[in-house]
Amino acid sequence: MRARVGVDVGGTKVLAVVVDEGGVVRRRQQTALPVADRTPALIEDALTRAVRDVVDGVPLSGVEGVGVSLAGLVDTAADRIRYCTHLPWRDDPVRARLAERWGTRVVLENDATCAAVAEHRLGAARGAASFVLVTLGTGIGGALFAGGDVWRGAGGLAGEFGHAPVVPAHLGGLPCTCGLHGCWEMYCSGHALRRWCAEHAPERADLRDGPEITAAAVAGDPVALAAFADVGAWLGRGLAGLVAGLDPALLVVGGGVSAAGDLLLDPARAELERATYAAGHRRMPPLVQAECGPEAGAVGAALLL
Amino acid sequence: MRARVGVDVGGTKVLAVVVDEGGVVRRRQQTALPVADRTPALIEDALTRAVRDVVDGVPLSGVEGVGVSLAGLVDTAADRIRYCTHLPWRDDPVRARLAERWGTRVVLENDATCAAVAEHRLGAARGAASFVLVTLGTGIGGALFAGGDVWRGAGGLAGEFGHAPVVPAHLGGLPCTCGLHGCWEMYCSGHALRRWCAEHAPERADLRDGPEITAAAVAGDPVALAAFADVGAWLGRGLAGLVAGLDPALLVVGGGVSAAGDLLLDPARAELERATYAAGHRRMPPLVQAECGPEAGAVGAALLL
Repeated sequence: MRARVGVDVGGTKVLAVVVDEGGVVRRRQQTALPVADRTPALIEDALTRAVRDVVDGVPLSGVEGVGVSLAGLVDTAADRIRYCTHLPWRDDPVRARLAERWGTRVVLENDATCAAVAEHRLGAARGAASFVLVTLGTGIGGALFAGGDVWRGAGGLAGEFGHAPVVPAHLGGLPCTCGLHGCWEMYCSGHALRRWCAEHAPERADLRDGPEITAAAVAGDPVALAAFADVGAWLGRGLAGLVAGLDPALLVVGGGVSAAGDLLLDPARAELERATYAAGHRRMPPLVQAECGPEAGAVGAALLL
Repeated sequence: MRARVGVDVGGTKVLAVVVDEGGVVRRRQQTALPVADRTPALIEDALTRAVRDVVDGVPLSGVEGVGVSLAGLVDTAADRIRYCTHLPWRDDPVRARLAERWGTRVVLENDATCAAVAEHRLGAARGAASFVLVTLGTGIGGALFAGGDVWRGAGGLAGEFGHAPVVPAHLGGLPCTCGLHGCWEMYCSGHALRRWCAEHAPERADLRDGPEITAAAVAGDPVALAAFADVGAWLGRGLAGLVAGLDPALLVVGGGVSAAGDLLLDPARAELERATYAAGHRRMPPLVQAECGPEAGAVGAALLL
């Protein structure tokens, strides 16, 4: 079996990996994406360099293929990227263009879908007949695994649980980057953690980003712990709706914010138990931390080949 | 092919039908359920009478079986009814008991699941590769059809979209009959229609129930139309979250409240278009009225045999 390449395209960086047929990472490489003038051509040049670097001289025709994972709406039926918040593609047949350029098989999928594939094959969801994955980064990514596969939706756009309205606009739902108001990800994400700290402790210049807030919470800082308690409660509240609607066997939380582990998940579990319909008459799904870490998207994309 | 019996157990009445193999209703019969001392035995006696009456002397061993549809949490894996709001069963192996009593094959399923089966086979969702159905009655029932079947969930309890929180408790989410606060069905249901009229036009004694409000709206009554505009907007808002999360090819609205047709669906369509994530970058699913009417649950249950 030949090596597979996986590439996860984030907002500011590209992570490329080479995995074996079992998904074990053999090589990895991270590179920054250009920040200015981000045309599709510029981003695709950066991806091409990342892929060529990680295979280290092996011709791309000699690999099984390249899986590309990214935070965006990927319409697999129409073979197009419909929309990305942080990347310049719009209604664009990116996958086919990269496949021609690289001379190898390319699959391209939403990053939460890729992460769900990785968690199911190698991580926290091994053996689960069904699960919901949410990834908490700047925003929320999501996937429903049911009936033996990730449910992609009619246009491949399923899993955007983060843009379900949880606070109505007329009750002060916060404006979201997507243009709507009151989206779940405004209350439950790295963005929400930072906003909570800025609002409740504006004097704390040491709590400006997710890794800083996580480190402070791990060290017992009460402000950082309270921020995780708030974001965790919103996590439980949103998951309660997903349990009522989808009744998954398992709930998996990944993404950078999930590195806080039980500091995030314990308040989420408490709220989930409190806020789930008929919690006393059902087997509640365990709520667990993802296991594949920051490489989940890249590894999952490679496994999709 | 032998006849199939379908029975839909509502809160106050039982509708029994005999259908042919194509799902066409050959006989129907509706009977009231006893209102007092509703033990499981009492309800099961009433069901037994309804089934025997509708087959009109044909021995039950001579029918293909009996499908039972009801508003409740049906754990098909454990073969038990977990919980019903309006009926007395709790963690009870009802299906097996009825099969033994009736001497025939019995299937028992959630009524929205049954309605989805009927709409897919005979109604508004014929040929749809995926769809979300919501039924608006006193509350909300729901089902996701994806990958060739209704997604039942790990414990058969999926589809309770009506108990997702749409207004947080700390922002005044209304208390729901289920014990939670801010459930979607408190804002989008027959109950919500009645509450809207009682709050905004307490003097209107002619707008006390759903059929009265629907008749008034059809006749152009401004209060009734405003009630449908409000409930319709909440319908669109909740469906927007389901489109973001599940990306179905089609949205079907059934249940008694849907009899108002476009008086309900037009305000819902407007809000759906406004409140759906990336509406301009996706094919929006059509939002249509269910076609199988009040018999959808009974017919769908019979089709599951």
